[in-house]
Amino acid sequence: MIFTRRFRYRFGDIDDAGIAYYPKLLHYFHCAFEDWWADALGTPYPTVMQQQKLGLPTVRLEADFFAPVRYGDEPDFHLGVLRIGSSSVEFGFWATRGDDPRPLCRARVVTAAVHMDTMQTRPLPDDWRERFQPFVIGEQEFPSRR
Amino acid sequence: MIFTRRFRYRFGDIDDAGIAYYPKLLHYFHCAFEDWWADALGTPYPTVMQQQKLGLPTVRLEADFFAPVRYGDEPDFHLGVLRIGSSSVEFGFWATRGDDPRPLCRARVVTAAVHMDTMQTRPLPDDWRERFQPFVIGEQEFPSRR
Amino acid sequence: MIFTRRFRYRFGDIDDAGIAYYPKLLHYFHCAFEDWWADALGTPYPTVMQQQKLGLPTVRLEADFFAPVRYGDEPDFHLGVLRIGSSSVEFGFWATRGDDPRPLCRARVVTAAVHMDTMQTRPLPDDWRERFQPFVIGEQEFPSRR
Amino acid sequence: MIFTRRFRYRFGDIDDAGIAYYPKLLHYFHCAFEDWWADALGTPYPTVMQQQKLGLPTVRLEADFFAPVRYGDEPDFHLGVLRIGSSSVEFGFWATRGDDPRPLCRARVVTAAVHMDTMQTRPLPDDWRERFQPFVIGEQEFPSRR
Repeated sequence: MIFTRRFRYRFGDIDDAGIAYYPKLLHYFHCAFEDWWADALGTPYPTVMQQQKLGLPTVRLEADFFAPVRYGDEPDFHLGVLRIGSSSVEFGFWATRGDDPRPLCRARVVTAAVHMDTMQTRPLPDDWRERFQPFVIGEQEFPSRR
Repeated sequence: MIFTRRFRYRFGDIDDAGIAYYPKLLHYFHCAFEDWWADALGTPYPTVMQQQKLGLPTVRLEADFFAPVRYGDEPDFHLGVLRIGSSSVEFGFWATRGDDPRPLCRARVVTAAVHMDTMQTRPLPDDWRERFQPFVIGEQEFPSRR
Repeated sequence: MIFTRRFRYRFGDIDDAGIAYYPKLLHYFHCAFEDWWADALGTPYPTVMQQQKLGLPTVRLEADFFAPVRYGDEPDFHLGVLRIGSSSVEFGFWATRGDDPRPLCRARVVTAAVHMDTMQTRPLPDDWRERFQPFVIGEQEFPSRR
Repeated sequence: MIFTRRFRYRFGDIDDAGIAYYPKLLHYFHCAFEDWWADALGTPYPTVMQQQKLGLPTVRLEADFFAPVRYGDEPDFHLGVLRIGSSSVEFGFWATRGDDPRPLCRARVVTAAVHMDTMQTRPLPDDWRERFQPFVIGEQEFPSRR
């Protein structure tokens, strides 16, 4: 199952070339990640971090930017889980515009499960492992080119 | 005494109109405030907040934007203290470009002294009151128009 | 008529004090402004700027920050038109949380109508004046304190 | 030759976990890139984009985040050129703190030379190829782990 959330690209998100500043595209991927917790998993990410002391900081990132995003675009940002490890989770994010299925950009994001008080690696709790399971996608579902 | 710090206006700081997005100008005023602590007062603001538990959040802001700032501009951002109260400090910020003394923008920022653990108002400690004193400027030094 | 849009306060929007960095709150007011164009007036702001060459940059701002906003908060951001001048528009923005009508913060924003090619002041077109009219509110509707 | 620029990590750059929000670290790498143009190559990037119509947007990015960056840190951000292609340039960026040579994070950034009016690929001009040459580093100089 793929989680999708549309974001309106904002006035202050544009760089001087008139297109999306790429750190902002990664910011929107993170927004999709936060909304996935709150709206798909049913537990807001702040609650997970503050009450369960579980964080999933990014340790590795690979991103491709295939086509420019402009002010006023409202891309759909998609999230799928590519791999669930013992203490890590790998996510695939990509963005599309309107009915065009070709990705504007994509990112493979490897996160580590950490304890929020120490920022040290911890095993991924089993209940989260199970709740992530429906969002697992195959590599062939993660678009590799435009 | 006026504290001045030059910042290079950044690629990702521009809005779709090709000029500075005004929340970003306020961000640079805050950067000047942080550098004032670290480089003029000699105690970084994180140290003040974390060790002395003193914070100065903004409670009121009045800003005027007189002329556009563009990508590649490197305005000088100026800070002066307009008033030191029992548990508040009022700052004047303004930006100029090159040798032109006319302000591009300015902001009057009223901060409240708070205890960082409770975010409740507390008296401004006397040692800080004394160390702020050399930066007090008169209203006539705070530029009111371009 | 008041235009309201709920925004989820984001992970990267928090400052080191664990509360909303105030330039980010002003950013969300601008997001509400952009959504008002697209969703209430029916013409996206980029279209207005690029095709009609009309821009409404902020020339003056007065803001009050009454109570902290934290990560995970999903405040409602409200927009009303306080005054329509010959070549300026004054907006009132404020944020509330949940059922509590008391404002978390507010901003009075004075914008100037400019021609986007020259950034020079121009008269506000009559059709926009008419379409703004339903959103005019009285000063007493713009919350002045918490 | 490695280009190095120290940036003070800012109040508004911290996420709710109290550490650097990773899109902000990528923003600082871009700031180092901008300063490299202005201060090492002697031509500001806005001039290159606006007058020579040359842009170098990021088309691929690989980043590793080895250790957290916190508010008040002032990491050194380093830039080296890993490869100069016919119409692309590959950069290596990494950050260190104080005298500790171990990287906090790093990013391999592949850029495409484009014409700013069309955003279409163009050959990298020879004069820029020559001026980039002194900053070419070997793969072994680009730190691969902490």
